[in-house]
Amino acid sequence: MLHDPNHVYIFDTTLRDGEQVPGCQLTTPEKVEIAKELESLGVDIIEAGFPVSSPGDFLSVVEISKAVKYPTICALTRANKGDIDVAVEALKYAKTPRIHTGIGSSDMHIKYKFNSTREEILERAVEAVKYAKKSVEDIEFYAEDAGRADVEYLALMVESVIAAGATVVNIPDTNGYCLPDQYGSKIKYLKENVKNIDKAIISVHCHNDLGLATANSIAGLQNGARQVECTINGIGERAGNTSMEEVVMILKTHYGMGLNSTINTKHFYELSNMVSTMMRMPVQPNKAIVGANAFAHSSGIHQDGFLKHRENYEIISPDDVGFPNASIVLTARSGRHALKFHLARLGHHLDKGELDLTYKTFLTLADSKLNITDEDLLMLVGAGKLV
Amino acid sequence: MLHDPNHVYIFDTTLRDGEQVPGCQLTTPEKVEIAKELESLGVDIIEAGFPVSSPGDFLSVVEISKAVKYPTICALTRANKGDIDVAVEALKYAKTPRIHTGIGSSDMHIKYKFNSTREEILERAVEAVKYAKKSVEDIEFYAEDAGRADVEYLALMVESVIAAGATVVNIPDTNGYCLPDQYGSKIKYLKENVKNIDKAIISVHCHNDLGLATANSIAGLQNGARQVECTINGIGERAGNTSMEEVVMILKTHYGMGLNSTINTKHFYELSNMVSTMMRMPVQPNKAIVGANAFAHSSGIHQDGFLKHRENYEIISPDDVGFPNASIVLTARSGRHALKFHLARLGHHLDKGELDLTYKTFLTLADSKLNITDEDLLMLVGAGKLV
Repeated sequence: MLHDPNHVYIFDTTLRDGEQVPGCQLTTPEKVEIAKELESLGVDIIEAGFPVSSPGDFLSVVEISKAVKYPTICALTRANKGDIDVAVEALKYAKTPRIHTGIGSSDMHIKYKFNSTREEILERAVEAVKYAKKSVEDIEFYAEDAGRADVEYLALMVESVIAAGATVVNIPDTNGYCLPDQYGSKIKYLKENVKNIDKAIISVHCHNDLGLATANSIAGLQNGARQVECTINGIGERAGNTSMEEVVMILKTHYGMGLNSTINTKHFYELSNMVSTMMRMPVQPNKAIVGANAFAHSSGIHQDGFLKHRENYEIISPDDVGFPNASIVLTARSGRHALKFHLARLGHHLDKGELDLTYKTFLTLADSKLNITDEDLLMLVGAGKLV
Repeated sequence: MLHDPNHVYIFDTTLRDGEQVPGCQLTTPEKVEIAKELESLGVDIIEAGFPVSSPGDFLSVVEISKAVKYPTICALTRANKGDIDVAVEALKYAKTPRIHTGIGSSDMHIKYKFNSTREEILERAVEAVKYAKKSVEDIEFYAEDAGRADVEYLALMVESVIAAGATVVNIPDTNGYCLPDQYGSKIKYLKENVKNIDKAIISVHCHNDLGLATANSIAGLQNGARQVECTINGIGERAGNTSMEEVVMILKTHYGMGLNSTINTKHFYELSNMVSTMMRMPVQPNKAIVGANAFAHSSGIHQDGFLKHRENYEIISPDDVGFPNASIVLTARSGRHALKFHLARLGHHLDKGELDLTYKTFLTLADSKLNITDEDLLMLVGAGKLV
């Protein structure tokens, strides 16, 4: 494969790791609808499901494979022939199929989950990749709980599965345990110590249990990874997966890193709403990039600075993510400049004396009321003039 | 001051930077109630408000000062005598008062917000600290937009305000712009290049516009900062501030860093709910540490591993943050082990054959239903036995 070394592959797992969340389950037609939107967004890979897990999931992989043209369609399996056979069958209509197989790599998982040994697990990993490779060219291998795995054993596993045919190696921080410097170092170690590493793409798959999924993914990219596994709104089990919108907007804002994706970021806001509604999974107002308040300035100091020069308090233009409009909201923390701005917007241009009087009345009202509406403002202007 | 070099001061700004969010405004009695809970939680500093901004905010600082005994009470000001006079007045009942004054430090803020020069701004910074120091011993200085400031100018500003009497220097990433390595390097530069830096504590104040507030705060601590400004649930303007619960649980989980706080983490869940309810600010289910799903395992692979050995998929015990109970939720992605576990919990111990039959019926039901309740399970056992 020939890769642009600066291209970051965006691997969406909203429909697999995201959809397995309590209460988020989708019907097959709903999944197809989201998959089409992900295609419009420009993702490189759609992980469509875990076919062996249930008949509904199998059907979804089939239908998404039929409905979607450009992105690679990926299906998850455990490292066994039964799972792989079912995934191959589910992927038969995919234009560009990928099997995502793997097994635990940390001693904790090897001992307590598989009751096995490092040697035996390594063998199962290699066998699974070889077996899947007979049916599908593009094989991604996940080394589950890699975040807590011994890095030398992990390197051996990665080298072995690449030799067996893996095209992508996924280094998941399954439990959201790592600090960014730890996770970055792990990727760096693999990049520097796995002989055949240039024959595969390193993928990052992070969880947000400590609030570090986005930072860990970026640390991985800074150290040589070139695929990010992520979900819309960061949905996913427990505290969720890496938020696609956060990672992509970091690449865009910090263009000095020299990394780029093919995501059409203007679709983010709309798709965020669609996923939130369909999956019944609310997005909190203070969610980065797509939260309702993400671009709302309310304090006096900030509003004043914002009105003088937008970039004083805004590093991303709301337009870039399809946000309907950036709002200045008036509360008791707002200053004179913001009040003046909004009154002018409503056609009332006050001189300094008038503004001072109105501001006093405004503060009294705002101390007892959460948000000041346009109606309140118009009433205030009346009141201000009567004083 | 004598400091334990490994102690991280937890500076809560829920009632100041958090409360200025659209729709989140609190009454004075509500603020006092939260302040008392923050005291029980064990925070070192409570930023109680911005007294000059409105009469309500002034009153809140007064009442919190009266109600709270152990934490330092901090009041925000701009770098001018008027603001400082009002803050000093508001703090008169505080047992341990702190003034938090400051000014913009980036060229963008200096030019477009203050229409000024580096020299003039430096002078205003020093004057403000000296003036505040006449009334209050503990002076924290914020270098607004430090995340985008020239680091040499920032170092000069920090050195000058420490010489003028600042006990804490706050290096805010006001716009949530920095990557963790950039922010960490900035703190490291100050630690290594500001002559009198050991006479003050470096504070980190990060915003979450790119989803990096927690990671940036940790990077600051790893490079020598010893105070974290944060809010409950990460509330705050736009995408919010650093989440206190995330930073504190990182310090606890990664004890190898050797940093500690005096926070009683078992209060987190209760306080998170209280703040969310009072401020009408929902916490999304996939919020780290305090979200409703933060400890919920739903996929078959995870549930199986979790049931075999809890630590396979859990890095924090829910008890540690006062979470009511960790839940295994049954969906179409759940495996036989999880089904068996829940049936056993309900008093039904199935043999392999019975379990296989019940699991099939379970999958059909779960494909058409979001969550499987205990009632569903009991019905299933009946159905399973009838087949």
